[in-house]
Parts: sequence; C-alpha cells; structure tokens
Amino acid sequence: MRRRALLAGGAAAGLGAVAACSAGSGGSAPSEGSGQPVVPVSFTDIGTGIVPFHGIRQAGVTTEPPAHGAFVSFTLSRGTDRAALGRMLRLLTDDAVRLTRGEPALGDTEAELARHPSRLTVTFGFGPGLYRAAGLKSPVADLPAFTVDRLEPRWSGGDLMLQICADDALTVTHAQRMLIKDARPFGAVRWVQRGFRRSAGVHPAGFTQRNVLGQLDGTANPRDAAMDTAVWNPDGSTSLVVRRIRAEIETWDLLSVTDKENAVGRRMVSGAPLSGAAEFDEPDFAKLDDTGLPVMPDYAHVTRARQTDPRLKILRRPYNYDEAPDAQGRPDSGLVFASYQADIDRQYLPIQRRLAEKDLLNEWTTPIGSAVFAIPPGCAEGGWIGERVLA
Amino acid sequence: MRRRALLAGGAAAGLGAVAACSAGSGGSAPSEGSGQPVVPVSFTDIGTGIVPFHGIRQAGVTTEPPAHGAFVSFTLSRGTDRAALGRMLRLLTDDAVRLTRGEPALGDTEAELARHPSRLTVTFGFGPGLYRAAGLKSPVADLPAFTVDRLEPRWSGGDLMLQICADDALTVTHAQRMLIKDARPFGAVRWVQRGFRRSAGVHPAGFTQRNVLGQLDGTANPRDAAMDTAVWNPDGSTSLVVRRIRAEIETWDLLSVTDKENAVGRRMVSGAPLSGAAEFDEPDFAKLDDTGLPVMPDYAHVTRARQTDPRLKILRRPYNYDEAPDAQGRPDSGLVFASYQADIDRQYLPIQRRLAEKDLLNEWTTPIGSAVFAIPPGCAEGGWIGERVLA
Repeated sequence: MRRRALLAGGAAAGLGAVAACSAGSGGSAPSEGSGQPVVPVSFTDIGTGIVPFHGIRQAGVTTEPPAHGAFVSFTLSRGTDRAALGRMLRLLTDDAVRLTRGEPALGDTEAELARHPSRLTVTFGFGPGLYRAAGLKSPVADLPAFTVDRLEPRWSGGDLMLQICADDALTVTHAQRMLIKDARPFGAVRWVQRGFRRSAGVHPAGFTQRNVLGQLDGTANPRDAAMDTAVWNPDGSTSLVVRRIRAEIETWDLLSVTDKENAVGRRMVSGAPLSGAAEFDEPDFAKLDDTGLPVMPDYAHVTRARQTDPRLKILRRPYNYDEAPDAQGRPDSGLVFASYQADIDRQYLPIQRRLAEKDLLNEWTTPIGSAVFAIPPGCAEGGWIGERVLA
Repeated sequence: MRRRALLAGGAAAGLGAVAACSAGSGGSAPSEGSGQPVVPVSFTDIGTGIVPFHGIRQAGVTTEPPAHGAFVSFTLSRGTDRAALGRMLRLLTDDAVRLTRGEPALGDTEAELARHPSRLTVTFGFGPGLYRAAGLKSPVADLPAFTVDRLEPRWSGGDLMLQICADDALTVTHAQRMLIKDARPFGAVRWVQRGFRRSAGVHPAGFTQRNVLGQLDGTANPRDAAMDTAVWNPDGSTSLVVRRIRAEIETWDLLSVTDKENAVGRRMVSGAPLSGAAEFDEPDFAKLDDTGLPVMPDYAHVTRARQTDPRLKILRRPYNYDEAPDAQGRPDSGLVFASYQADIDRQYLPIQRRLAEKDLLNEWTTPIGSAVFAIPPGCAEGGWIGERVLA
C-alpha cells in the first residue's frame, strides 16, 4: 500500500522538482557577467513559497537553492539503535512535513514563527555512523586525507545531517530549533554551519552566485537532462559532500585581477573562461596564446576541476559563511562547500584528487571541515525518510 | 560653501528619508496579527535599491530596516588623535558613499561584490572613547549598571561603531570587509554582531517583525510625525544604544501561551495588548478583569516599558541573532537590541530602569552586552561624517 502510494504520488512530485530545477539552472539562464536581462521570480513567493516535501527524491538537492542554509550534524547517542533511529526519523519527518508547509511542528513552542515557509526544505543525510548503529553497510565512507586538508574535528563528520534551507533566516532558525529539540533524545549536536547566498530577488533563478572571493561559483554545474543522471540514483538516493573551506582573503587581496584570473581560469567580472567570451562558453584547454602557452593554465582551478562527461559532473550547492573577524580585522569567512552527486567515488573524488594535487587556488583556500552523507530517497505522504533503509 | 551645500542638498535628502520612513512605519501599516492584506514592496528593488547616503541626518536610523545587519565596534589605537580621526572618517565616509551607491570602494579588492547595494546603509556611531581621543566632551556616557545585567566585555563598549545594513547578506559581508580594512590602521575590531530580520518580500514595509521568542517586536515605536521629535536632534544627530540580549529559550519554551502573554502583556498571535483586540490598540492599563485585577499585569513587559508621551518614545530597530547551539542543542540566540533616541538620559534610561526593576520578561532574557554611541549628523556630498564634531 505505502510503496504504491510512494511510487504514484512521489514520482510525480520528484519529476516536478527536477523540471523546476532544470528550468532554473539551464545554460541559457542569465548570469551576472552575461549582460542578459534579469527576469525576477515572483516577489510574493518569498515568504509563502512552498517546496513539496514528499517525493521519491528529497527536496533541497536539485531545488533552486534559497538564500539561507544551515547544515546541522549530529553524533548519535550510544543507545540509539535501529528501532530508535526509526522513531527519531518518523518524528523528524513529521516536523519537516509540517514546517515546510508553513505549519507549526507538533510540539512547536513558537508556533507563530512557522508561518512563513519561504521555500523551506529539510534534507536528511545519513553518515557512516548511522549505518553502523543500525547494523547496516554504509553506502558512503569518509573521504581519504588530502595534503591540502587542515581539518578540524569541530567541523567534520557526523552520523545524521539535516540541511535546512529557506529564503528567510528566521524561518531557518525556527526550523533548526524545532528539529534539534526533537533530535536531542537520540544524539548530540556535532556542528552547525550557517551560510548564505544572494537574497531572493537580487538574482533571478538559475543565476550563478558569487563567493566571498568574488568568483562566480557553480558555473560548471550539470544542466537540464544531465542533472538527472549526475545527481540521482534510480531509487531516488544521492550523496552529499560538505567541506568547510576557509578563504584566505588577506593574501588573495594582494593579487592583481590578472593573477586572480589565472588562478581561477575565468574572468572575474564575467566568469568567462580565459579561452572564451561568456560565462557558459566551454573552456578550450587546447587553445594557445601568442607565446605558445595554453590560454587556460594547467594549474588553474577550472582546468583541474574540468569534467567534460556530463554524467560525471557534480552539483555544487554551496553557501557562503562569514563569522566575526579577529581583533586585527582578519575575516573568518569562506564557503560551506556542498556537492551532490550520485556516486562520490566516481564523481567527486577524481575531481577533488586533481584539485588537491595542483590547483593554484589551493594557495588561497583551506579545507578545515569535511563530512560525507548518503541522502536516502524521499518518501510519500504518511511515510518517513529512511524507511527503505531501516524498515 | 560646504555648509550651504549641506543645508540645501542635505536637508532635502533628510526630509525625503523621513517621509519615506513615516510612510513605512505608520500606524495603519498591516501587521502579522491584524489580518490586513499584505502589500508587497517592489521586488526588483531588492538588489538594486539605493538609500541616499548624504543628508543632514545619517541613513540607517529611520530608514526601514532591511533584512541583514552588522554592528561593528572598534577600539581606537593609542596614536589615533583628532587629526587621525579626521583622516579615518574621510576614508570611511568615502567608502560608505561608494558602497551604498553600488560602486566599489576606492581600494576595493572584490569589486564585483559591490554591484548589488540592496538598500545598503552605513551608519557611524561615536563612543565616549572617540571624544576622549579627540579631546572633546562626549555627549553620551556608558549606561549605569542594572541588576539584570550579565555583561561580557566581548560584546560591550567601543570607540567607533559602524552599523551596516542591507537586504543581502553578501552585500553586508563585503561592505563590512572593506570598511574594516580601511579602519584597521586606526584601531582594532572590538566586536562584530551580525543579525537578521525577515527577508525583503516576506513582510511589507512597516510590518512589525518577530523575535526568536516569537513576539512581535517594535509595535510601540514612534510613528509618523512623532518619529521626528523622538529620534532626531535639530542638528541632525541622535544616539544609539546597542544591547545584546540573550533569549533563554529553553525555559521560555516551558511556558504556556497564556503565561507567555502575561509576561509580555500582548497576545502572541496578534500582538494585541491583553486589554485590546488589535496590535496597534493603545494598552488600557486601568482596565480590570472579572476578579478586579488589572488586565495588563503590572509586571508585564508592555506595562513596564510603556511611554505614552510620543516625544519620549524610543525607536527600536533590533536584529535577531542565532549562533551555533551547544552539543546539548541549547540555542545561543537572542536580540541585538538597538534603539535610537534623541536623548538617552531622557528617553531610554527611564524605560530601561522600569524594565530592570520589575519586568517579568527579565526571567527569559539576559543582557550580555551593552554599548552607547552618539550618532553625529550626516554630511553633504564632499563632506564627511564627523566633520562638525571634529573639524
């Protein structure tokens, strides 16, 4: 019965979500550098916009990312076994269903704060430890160490992860509070990373955002039909890599624009590859300059990260962070890098290995946190996230 | 010449700003509880909206508060004397003029990030220490100690304060970075407090926001013509009190809605005083219930904070904060309380004394930071903030 409902109602919602996303992130989307006109999305949707929770795929993955995001990672308590996980996930799913509709959670103590869903999504991720606690084999494993890593335990790992996104920061705060309250009997908060992208209305849907280093970030994301194969497994699952990447802005600021562009492989203003004229031009790695050297430097970020097979691309869905600077005014900011891909080993790791080996941008970015999560399929109405993993 | 330009161009801009503000915060503005229709402001203004910097009064005070705010406080270096202050303020004024127009600062290292002003304002505040450094008498003094205070030095005091507000968090981040870089030779960053209100588009202009305790916050603000006399001195100056007020949400959540309403003196859903029906109804402190007790409890926040003389009201312009919770999931959130008033002694202190003495809400709120700043008049084009204080 439930399985049938899932496949019927769920599949439709899942396809709808993908269609909406493809429209948003298509190659023809206007971008900051392209000079194309800005087509605003509906203003009145900012507070009232609802992203359907149910479907064979979870929301918050190929959904157009809203302005604010919180990644909340938990360490499960010793006694949280498979049965307890089921209880916890039923409870958290129920909270997520209500909150994403703009309704208070069952135990909501600030019911009025639930009123503006603002495209709220709650996406559940399972770390290797959750599978261990359930006596199951994990489909994801911690990343290997990279020489560029300076990982801090306080930003790394986790058994359960909730990605909470909305166009309103108070909506994220309230959803985060309710979900943490209900998760508390089952585990401890390991870390919370809050971040932001451009506010709704500043950019049209599908617009490439800038990070705190001023770079357009996400140009190479899979688009249109390629999104489907790159991100989703047939059962509706995917995987998430979260990396906290500190931006070394103080030294980055010492570079000339030309040096910055050589490090990235793209123009700062337009995001165009150094071999091209517009943001979405395919980089031409064979092109030589007058002196016979490649126009796209071998050590540039774009050259190292290139992945021409659309099935092997990753979907970058990062949020900027900016914590308080120190007394000397040195910023503590960077990127909560988040990438979704069907298979971490086949898609994320080869790119990351090439970047760790010789990306010039490594000079101005430092990975200080790392975590991996399996993103289980979505569920139909009445179901719960994780039911096909744990039930 | 400059004085004439100031009085001509400046006054017009100042009046324009006040007119815009009065329209926004009028008593007839729709509010969350009132059931009145929501009239959205223009969507396309979210990224491109410009608040004029120049005028006899600084922007960012009676300007409708945008979604994101940063309060940055500095401790001046030992060598920063009156002449150095003049150099610093010329530099920071120039940065603020350009950034609020959506143009890069002169030394801007991430020029592309300056492109979306998103109603950016930069408001300058002078603490007692700045006047000391300049050999001048300070118009503001640190607040007296209150028994409810649990002040931490890391959130208190400051010689110079920049309040940076915009509808986009990346715009705030970039402006903050540029301003701190240029202020560094003259002082150290003492504290930074970032906060948020509802995103643009979630509420119409003039809508009363909610804080993290779920209360409507700012209902009693001066409105229309009263704003002028309550906030501004004839020379265009005003003053700012910044208090970091931690919300004790864990214990607040244990209260029933009725207990919360008795602590506040207003209905949670509508914001109506317990003696009335709608948010902007004047509280009736003489009204008695069936048992002969006052409908508005004597210990309620609204009863203690009441100020019926519109000239003695204060303009609350707070931002919510929400830092990472601890491992047990206990939130670290609350309010960056910010109030503007012509005279702290006459307006803020009597209210604060009554609240500190017997406000029931003190049980669930703890002041952990406190600072006061004189807000000098604005300046005309070509001038600089502080010129009439220091020149």
